[in-house]
Amino acid sequence: MSDPRPRRVAALVDGLTAAHLDGLLLTGLSNIRYLTGFSGSSALLVVGPRDLVLITDFRYQTQVVEEVGDLARIAIEPSSLWTGLWQQLAQLPSMQVIGFETAHIQHRDFQRLLEAGARWQWRPTVDLVETLRERKDESEIARITEAAQVATDALERTLPQIRRGMKELAVAGILEKELRDAGSEGFAFPSIVASGPRSALPHAHSSVRELEDGDFLLMDFGAVVAGYCSDITRTVVVGKASEEHRAVYDIVRNANERAARSVRAGMTGRDADALARDYIDRAGFAPLFGHSLGHGIGLEVHEAPRLARTAEGVLAESAVVTIEPGIYRPGWGGVRIEDDVVLAAAGPRILTRFARELIELG
Amino acid sequence: MSDPRPRRVAALVDGLTAAHLDGLLLTGLSNIRYLTGFSGSSALLVVGPRDLVLITDFRYQTQVVEEVGDLARIAIEPSSLWTGLWQQLAQLPSMQVIGFETAHIQHRDFQRLLEAGARWQWRPTVDLVETLRERKDESEIARITEAAQVATDALERTLPQIRRGMKELAVAGILEKELRDAGSEGFAFPSIVASGPRSALPHAHSSVRELEDGDFLLMDFGAVVAGYCSDITRTVVVGKASEEHRAVYDIVRNANERAARSVRAGMTGRDADALARDYIDRAGFAPLFGHSLGHGIGLEVHEAPRLARTAEGVLAESAVVTIEPGIYRPGWGGVRIEDDVVLAAAGPRILTRFARELIELG
Repeated sequence: MSDPRPRRVAALVDGLTAAHLDGLLLTGLSNIRYLTGFSGSSALLVVGPRDLVLITDFRYQTQVVEEVGDLARIAIEPSSLWTGLWQQLAQLPSMQVIGFETAHIQHRDFQRLLEAGARWQWRPTVDLVETLRERKDESEIARITEAAQVATDALERTLPQIRRGMKELAVAGILEKELRDAGSEGFAFPSIVASGPRSALPHAHSSVRELEDGDFLLMDFGAVVAGYCSDITRTVVVGKASEEHRAVYDIVRNANERAARSVRAGMTGRDADALARDYIDRAGFAPLFGHSLGHGIGLEVHEAPRLARTAEGVLAESAVVTIEPGIYRPGWGGVRIEDDVVLAAAGPRILTRFARELIELG
Repeated sequence: MSDPRPRRVAALVDGLTAAHLDGLLLTGLSNIRYLTGFSGSSALLVVGPRDLVLITDFRYQTQVVEEVGDLARIAIEPSSLWTGLWQQLAQLPSMQVIGFETAHIQHRDFQRLLEAGARWQWRPTVDLVETLRERKDESEIARITEAAQVATDALERTLPQIRRGMKELAVAGILEKELRDAGSEGFAFPSIVASGPRSALPHAHSSVRELEDGDFLLMDFGAVVAGYCSDITRTVVVGKASEEHRAVYDIVRNANERAARSVRAGMTGRDADALARDYIDRAGFAPLFGHSLGHGIGLEVHEAPRLARTAEGVLAESAVVTIEPGIYRPGWGGVRIEDDVVLAAAGPRILTRFARELIELG
């Protein structure tokens, strides 16, 4: 596979020219990583038609050279990245009107642009790089596919180790160790292990609650491979499932499968969301499905596009999105089943290959 | 212990009055948690002399009531928190001049204040809550103490499980599982497990490198208990330590112990940093200690105060700070020894009670 970075930079430069900007200051670290490969936690990037300048600090002097190579000019700043920025810009006379990322710069730093950076003209920009990132290339899909495989491998090895009486935190510990052993370089987000009534909280974290017979056990977690995230949820039953468990589970499962089978590039995010929501609605559970159907994944675990009632945008070809319908009955429990799906030209392809049949543990 | 939140809110209101503000809009989630107890990932808080209004979304409707109780008025917003903000402010006629947190609001949201919020006057504020958070109260010190205990317990149980040939990722997996089993509700930051030459990278993440005889193995990680973080580093040797291992290790250990014994509330952050730096300098290793000595910990793993060459501020009594000198020889390896210390009135008290003698594994 050829290095995708020069293509990405060229596509961004086209966008800058169309927006009548001489250059763009990037402060969003995922956007900087996408364009240059640099994975450190401290960087500014300046992009122009003939210039690519990455400013970072001394802690990253070895790493930045390994990751970025000669794609960009690298400046190591001993104290403040902003001091380095003014120095670098002063050497780029063609940069006068410069965009900045309105969603990735704190007001404090915006004030720096107006004060220390007053000799340049600054223009807010929205989602210039995010839009490029929505459409994944081959190398990105390969990494997300591997992150999905790591997550499903870890889940496969975790389920047989779960016992009644275990704390949710202990289940999280097993799952996270299996993620590490399967090769995950980190966690896409804080793992959610929620049991019994806590499974009805869509954003529960793991707690000291102990697993009991008849609990739903919801596990929502993700792996990271070469910077790219996966995001999967499975809900199982501790002991024997009741009729009510099965009834709720089957609705969520059918909603998941319908949406994952029918979602297509070219649909709006709203129409994609409706694939699952209309089904849950007809089953009479619409008020208990309180969140949106899904979101893009990539270098971040939540990125464009959105699959939601309020999402008018059209889904791009080669986007990778989650499909995660859920039903949450307060005080009783909840079910969510989440898969990662590539919107390929030939149709949707599910990356998280793991059983969706209801599993009864022990 | 009495509920500390009303005291915190009252202290903030005093600060607002002194700054001639009718109220403050809080967007920083750790600041919101400190004042109200709410731990969700989506919230706005308005604080005034007679008003405390927390705006969050429907995902948190159960959790927010449990966590906040009747301390604040709670508004659940179906769509955008900002719409909720304008509605709430319209009901508070005494709020005309309102501060906002310059370090915790993206330019995009700042624009909302100027546009949709144009009927109010907005003033940037800096560190109003962070300054309060620097001085920990009894309940906070109890939580950090427990988080430190969880971290040292996990390390204690991890060391005997480490073997030559294991990947750094696998060591991270063991450590993280032990953290979970010891009761950690999450990870204070992505665990660093760095071996051999990689231990010389101060911000290495864990990799697929396998442990070899004669490696330094550096582990930097933290637990979270009731929202509060610990942060500890120990460096051990795989197999037998060489003379050079011991020489470098002893300098870092002495620097750590001197600083941890002598650091005091009332010193500047610069003077605290010098406690370790001057010693390392006299040993001839100053150029290989490239980062600052430490930082505050609490609801965030990096918060005020800073212990650094450029930190002119005075350390507050009851702050909890890290003491983490290191020596990094590129291509060979590095040592860091990090402890968490309360700056009590009676003198420093180390919370991370774990051996600092050089440990040889296996």
